[in-house]
Amino acid sequence: MSGWVKVVGLGPGAETMVTPEVTAALDAATDIVGYIPYVARVAPRAGLTLHPSDNRVEAERARAALDMARAGRRVVVVSSGDPGVFAMAAAVLEVLTPADDTLDVQVLPGITAMLAAAARAGAPLGHDFCAINLSDNLKPWALVERRLRLAAEADFAMAFYNPRSKSRPEGFAKVLGILRDACGPDRLITFARAVSTPDERLVTVTLAEARPEMADMRTVVLVTNSLGRRAGRFVYSPRSVPAGPDPAGTPA
Amino acid sequence: MSGWVKVVGLGPGAETMVTPEVTAALDAATDIVGYIPYVARVAPRAGLTLHPSDNRVEAERARAALDMARAGRRVVVVSSGDPGVFAMAAAVLEVLTPADDTLDVQVLPGITAMLAAAARAGAPLGHDFCAINLSDNLKPWALVERRLRLAAEADFAMAFYNPRSKSRPEGFAKVLGILRDACGPDRLITFARAVSTPDERLVTVTLAEARPEMADMRTVVLVTNSLGRRAGRFVYSPRSVPAGPDPAGTPA
Repeated sequence: MSGWVKVVGLGPGAETMVTPEVTAALDAATDIVGYIPYVARVAPRAGLTLHPSDNRVEAERARAALDMARAGRRVVVVSSGDPGVFAMAAAVLEVLTPADDTLDVQVLPGITAMLAAAARAGAPLGHDFCAINLSDNLKPWALVERRLRLAAEADFAMAFYNPRSKSRPEGFAKVLGILRDACGPDRLITFARAVSTPDERLVTVTLAEARPEMADMRTVVLVTNSLGRRAGRFVYSPRSVPAGPDPAGTPA
Repeated sequence: MSGWVKVVGLGPGAETMVTPEVTAALDAATDIVGYIPYVARVAPRAGLTLHPSDNRVEAERARAALDMARAGRRVVVVSSGDPGVFAMAAAVLEVLTPADDTLDVQVLPGITAMLAAAARAGAPLGHDFCAINLSDNLKPWALVERRLRLAAEADFAMAFYNPRSKSRPEGFAKVLGILRDACGPDRLITFARAVSTPDERLVTVTLAEARPEMADMRTVVLVTNSLGRRAGRFVYSPRSVPAGPDPAGTPA
């Protein structure tokens, strides 16, 4: 039997947000590869070997998955959310070799955290938006700051992944400062923690009220565009921007 | 029985990409509301009334859905992809009234077109990225152009929805011109049409090779960041940006 690798997204947490094609891939697999907490979401069964690994070993994990597939195993590489959003799809492609041209490699999408969080909050990403990984493990911090300022200038709604870690508690405070400066104190910001799990917690405040400790590494942070508003318990960025003075030009 | 509205995402087309929670909502509904081709994706059954409506009547459609829920019906508003990405979630929230505070309104996420397309292509959105609706039905064209230039300056990977319509064939040609100018001729661009349907067609070329007619209204267009590259049949934006000279500063 010829091996394959499917790089799949498990969604944000709830079983009810896992797509049928991902469930079928998990059912057909001989091996599951991924970060410890994501592999823990796959039920053990006879004939299935689980290969949990630690954070920050994505390249080694990807190589191990490809090696097993070359040897005829049916390997699922699991990511939380969607594998193409700050997750394992790029990591696997980065270590693919020309000899793998005939290897069966597929990427199967999942519900990414920002869209699960946006749905719970209403539609804060309901107009043009951007997604930024605030971790500076994989890029210079100066680039994070630059992208924040340009995103605000473009008046994008924004989604932030990995807002805060113990190793750089000051980074997210800087992010909030840049946003307040660029977007004004009244802009709406939503902290969505562990959406669709028993630990889910959502809070929407203004940038003036936002505090760094409202986010941790299980939180995705959403900011509306300049036209964002509340509707009852919901928050949304309207679908339309009226013609006339550019709203992005007048923060606060 | 009290009524409800669930604004759901049907994913890009394939049944295997519809989440179980969306399937359960469709099964529990008395009424399905949405744009004609999306309502057509829901199987008719006894006790279910289908309410297909034309494009560009989103506000009326949203009001009708809320009216039915207030009258005790169980209403599913369907969008293709994800309801929070250029779709019906914001439209419903825009017409919600203070009297609806006790009405059961939920948004259920789906696999949005750009992430289904990115998965098929590899991981072109594997680093910070933005999503822009190229239609100027709901915003001034000047704002589209401004966002394109700022997104390129930020070196975001990019996803474009609604790239081309019969009513404005020249718009997408302008977009390609701006991108060539801002990103250089060698940047990789993927045209992903009708992903996960029998009409699926994917092609990746350089900006120099890109032609407006490669896109239609069923196409989502993906552009890598400045570090984007090919790996066999795949294309991806690498997870890392090395420290040192800013790659965004050196297009072409």
